[in-house]
Amino acid sequence: MAAELESVELTLEKHLPEQELREVKRILYGSGSRKLDLPQDAVEAASKLGFELQGHQLEAAPEQLRKPRIVRVGLIQNQIVQPTSKPVGEQVAALHKRIGDIVEVASLCGVNIVCFQEAWTMPFAFCTREKLPWTEFAESAEQGPTTAFCQKLAKQYNMVVVSSILERDEAHGDTLWNTAVVISNSGAVLGKTRKNHIPRVGDFNESTYYMEGNTGHRVFQTAFGKIAVNICYGRHHPLNWFMYSANGAEIIFNPSATIGELSESLWPIEARNAAIANHCFTCAINRVGTEHFENEFTSGDSKPAHHDFGQFYGSSYVSAPDGSRTPGLSRTCDGLLVTELDLNLCRQVSDKWNFKMTGRYDLYAEELAEIIHPDFKPNIIHE
Amino acid sequence: MAAELESVELTLEKHLPEQELREVKRILYGSGSRKLDLPQDAVEAASKLGFELQGHQLEAAPEQLRKPRIVRVGLIQNQIVQPTSKPVGEQVAALHKRIGDIVEVASLCGVNIVCFQEAWTMPFAFCTREKLPWTEFAESAEQGPTTAFCQKLAKQYNMVVVSSILERDEAHGDTLWNTAVVISNSGAVLGKTRKNHIPRVGDFNESTYYMEGNTGHRVFQTAFGKIAVNICYGRHHPLNWFMYSANGAEIIFNPSATIGELSESLWPIEARNAAIANHCFTCAINRVGTEHFENEFTSGDSKPAHHDFGQFYGSSYVSAPDGSRTPGLSRTCDGLLVTELDLNLCRQVSDKWNFKMTGRYDLYAEELAEIIHPDFKPNIIHE
Repeated sequence: MAAELESVELTLEKHLPEQELREVKRILYGSGSRKLDLPQDAVEAASKLGFELQGHQLEAAPEQLRKPRIVRVGLIQNQIVQPTSKPVGEQVAALHKRIGDIVEVASLCGVNIVCFQEAWTMPFAFCTREKLPWTEFAESAEQGPTTAFCQKLAKQYNMVVVSSILERDEAHGDTLWNTAVVISNSGAVLGKTRKNHIPRVGDFNESTYYMEGNTGHRVFQTAFGKIAVNICYGRHHPLNWFMYSANGAEIIFNPSATIGELSESLWPIEARNAAIANHCFTCAINRVGTEHFENEFTSGDSKPAHHDFGQFYGSSYVSAPDGSRTPGLSRTCDGLLVTELDLNLCRQVSDKWNFKMTGRYDLYAEELAEIIHPDFKPNIIHE
Repeated sequence: MAAELESVELTLEKHLPEQELREVKRILYGSGSRKLDLPQDAVEAASKLGFELQGHQLEAAPEQLRKPRIVRVGLIQNQIVQPTSKPVGEQVAALHKRIGDIVEVASLCGVNIVCFQEAWTMPFAFCTREKLPWTEFAESAEQGPTTAFCQKLAKQYNMVVVSSILERDEAHGDTLWNTAVVISNSGAVLGKTRKNHIPRVGDFNESTYYMEGNTGHRVFQTAFGKIAVNICYGRHHPLNWFMYSANGAEIIFNPSATIGELSESLWPIEARNAAIANHCFTCAINRVGTEHFENEFTSGDSKPAHHDFGQFYGSSYVSAPDGSRTPGLSRTCDGLLVTELDLNLCRQVSDKWNFKMTGRYDLYAEELAEIIHPDFKPNIIHE
């Protein structure tokens, strides 16, 4: 079997002549992304720790009355560290250690907001449909050890941390949620936000564990801009992205876990379309690797029971409101993508393209209210 | 100056080694599109008439209870034929002739539904902001000579015709609209549908001529499936696509006129995202070439007044609900893209991914009703 392709971008760079490469990249990726030089100590540390480090920049025009609002976001994609058969505590501790190391490098790169992948403290074990030991990975969003760990990182590095975990909600009958905890650079828990849309596709039968979130479309005012978190499957729903943007989000993070055959041709499209349609930045993060489970499971695809789930194809990237995007991280390796944004670009693109001004939301509010009626009759013209 | 890149797809095919090409295409374009062999007489006619002819196929799985619902759609992109300074009648007649010739080839290819580009009977003269002679291109949607011409084609070739024109609405005080007329394969006018969102960006200040459409999101039941038309700038609005789909559209056509610097990196993303998000096919059509106007005009971009508008970059393509897409037509030449679809794919992908089932439209109807209030307060969490 041939080796996995490392990334589309590297393949194009390797084979296309310079002039064609420039045009192809302009058409496929937009012209707004530049390479960002990162400090030598960060580059060396990443190399030593064995993860890919990329730096990019998405600029805005200078304005007369507003200073540039420069923010560096860090997206981390990673494999699980310990086998899934190890004790829960050991698996979590190993992931804390790994992420702590990468966040230290992010700090060397001047990252202001870091976001980890979906359910980052655990294997994406929901494919097994077994409750134990996976539900033991659930923690309190406010009081759990992972949040305490992130608070320490946030305070130490003056960094906002977006930590997507399996949440145990003791106050509501011990229910589970798929939740992102947003931790201020002060170290305080700013709040939490839950996954609004739950998949029922292939191996992703997560409604076995948790239901649709009930936290709506809240946006978090951080020291580095207004951010929101659209967790995983929510990226397939344009209304979900829209509603975060309508509530003021300038950057929407999309911590995810998704695999090649299912979604890889959708991946470069959805988060990028959301950045374009909503005049904001979007950050798509996927895990990498294949996860092996001791007990075999089936995937609803007529194939025999098996033990491996994956391959998660990484390819994390950042999109800008002007349609530009950064290259993706590797399809196979751990990585940290550092991207410097100027948040002023959001309003600049909005003033140029006016999608919100021309959005006619009154019309859609009316039509949406109609289509949800059980007796809704589609507007179909017959000859 | 270097020659214009013909298309991204041809460039990749020329330079990438076979194995990398296959992987890059799978990731960038999905794996669902196959080449469709077209009849030799059609290939020869296209060559003689000087336009590009491509054939592709987007398949679905066989089902037990439904037969495949195979439809061939034809997208036509073209330059204007006569200089914009010629008499209006001559310009229209030349375009009728050109399109008539291409439709004849479409008929040889077994096309069932053909769609022309936006405002296909005229140059895209709205950039000039001059009213005459451009408003003279406007015609009645029901009684105009262009509709009569399309009815003849429809009947002769047993083809549904989607004809996007500048409409003169005599019944409502001679107002103008940007309107698509849908003509049944019987030759009858099935109805019309208007452009819902009007741009105010760069050279596209079309609200000088017409306002936002008032025909909502109607869908047309044709002999070859349920179709809708999302005209040009409406492709930037995910809610617009969604609402056509919610009313039952299986294919949404997007006749457009858009130029390189403004939108080319958005072009491959938006219609394709709409196909994915709404479990339907989408067909994006753009004109080609540069249009020269006798009177100089400015573009609101600090550059001197000039006479040329363009380059319209063609690149028309079809997207499938599974995220696959066809290659694009050329960026520079007239072309006919014939794509064979199996409409059964729409429900198959819907049953797999369940975006409508998991869409939570009741939640969004409520939130959308809130955000349109002038005193709406965004849901922002502060520390």
